[in-house]
Amino acid sequence: MQISARNQLKGTVQSVKLGSVMAEVVVALADGQEIVSAITRTSAESLQLKSGDPIVAIIKSTEVMLGKG
Amino acid sequence: MQISARNQLKGTVQSVKLGSVMAEVVVALADGQEIVSAITRTSAESLQLKSGDPIVAIIKSTEVMLGKG
Amino acid sequence: MQISARNQLKGTVQSVKLGSVMAEVVVALADGQEIVSAITRTSAESLQLKSGDPIVAIIKSTEVMLGKG
Amino acid sequence: MQISARNQLKGTVQSVKLGSVMAEVVVALADGQEIVSAITRTSAESLQLKSGDPIVAIIKSTEVMLGKG
Amino acid sequence: MQISARNQLKGTVQSVKLGSVMAEVVVALADGQEIVSAITRTSAESLQLKSGDPIVAIIKSTEVMLGKG
Amino acid sequence: MQISARNQLKGTVQSVKLGSVMAEVVVALADGQEIVSAITRTSAESLQLKSGDPIVAIIKSTEVMLGKG
Repeated sequence: MQISARNQLKGTVQSVKLGSVMAEVVVALADGQEIVSAITRTSAESLQLKSGDPIVAIIKSTEVMLGKG
Repeated sequence: MQISARNQLKGTVQSVKLGSVMAEVVVALADGQEIVSAITRTSAESLQLKSGDPIVAIIKSTEVMLGKG
Repeated sequence: MQISARNQLKGTVQSVKLGSVMAEVVVALADGQEIVSAITRTSAESLQLKSGDPIVAIIKSTEVMLGKG
Repeated sequence: MQISARNQLKGTVQSVKLGSVMAEVVVALADGQEIVSAITRTSAESLQLKSGDPIVAIIKSTEVMLGKG
Repeated sequence: MQISARNQLKGTVQSVKLGSVMAEVVVALADGQEIVSAITRTSAESLQLKSGDPIVAIIKSTEVMLGKG
Repeated sequence: MQISARNQLKGTVQSVKLGSVMAEVVVALADGQEIVSAITRTSAESLQLKSGDPIVAIIKSTEVMLGKG
């Protein structure tokens, strides 16, 4: 399935922290920068995420702000 | 001002396309990947964005989905 | 690729309206309800969306509000 | 009050899971598809959500991605 | 209908700018601060928004970032 | 750093509730209205948020819905 979200950044799962409803996943990009994702715990478990997994961070363009200076 | 959004990816403005209400800004990251941002035209003009500008893409963690496999 | 977004509603493209930066796509679900999506024009063109296409509306759980009564 | 969010899908609450800060609510649509909503626990309690309640899932158009193929 | 979005700020429409797909609406709050909303043109027309209208800006809690210092 | 998000509402932290992954922060605006923010616990701790802190609520325009009547 091809999806409309234009931001699909490849990285590696660094850590997964599970709460009761939400989960926090830290992803390392190739250039050393990090992306943090907050998804539901059920989603994290459904994807069976664990440290070291190759992963794609997907972000809709309308969710990206810009900062300058 | 320190902001709560944990995803702040450094890059360079590649292109700015202005519509009547919205604008699309393409940002190149250091590792060669791209991020596209859709902000209001007024915001783009306020930041005086132009190709080559150093820029930070700011994304709230709750907006980041993950894809695997 | 399996994605974390848990809402993936199957439907059919009813209409596509292209602006200069954004596009509006109306999707009909099987039960007769409609979903409207606002994505970038570039995404709509990249997916080559046209009326009648089978399509999946993808929505992150944290974006879904609830109304009652 | 009439609201601008154009996606208002009617369904029935299937389950409510309360965490300390967030809550996950599963909604069944008439056509058998499901929508999952992650809202604050305080909101879920304020709406007194329980299984079987008629409910409306409200989604802003800019939050809807599309997948094809 | 009672909705889960906990941020419902009362104000007055100051201006409406219509694009082909999107619209930008500026809302003045009672304390003099402004809120800008980007919704679809179709939504703006459906609400028949015009300068001076009493209006409520509705924002899901998960969309609110914080800045300090 | 100047950021593109056009909604930056000044207020005061009223309360901070920490969950395992997420945190809920209630902000009082000058006009007596409240804004609730759901951010990650890690962000809340990084900003060292506590009751009485001056704070700015930052909201991207595309996240603001409108309600009328």
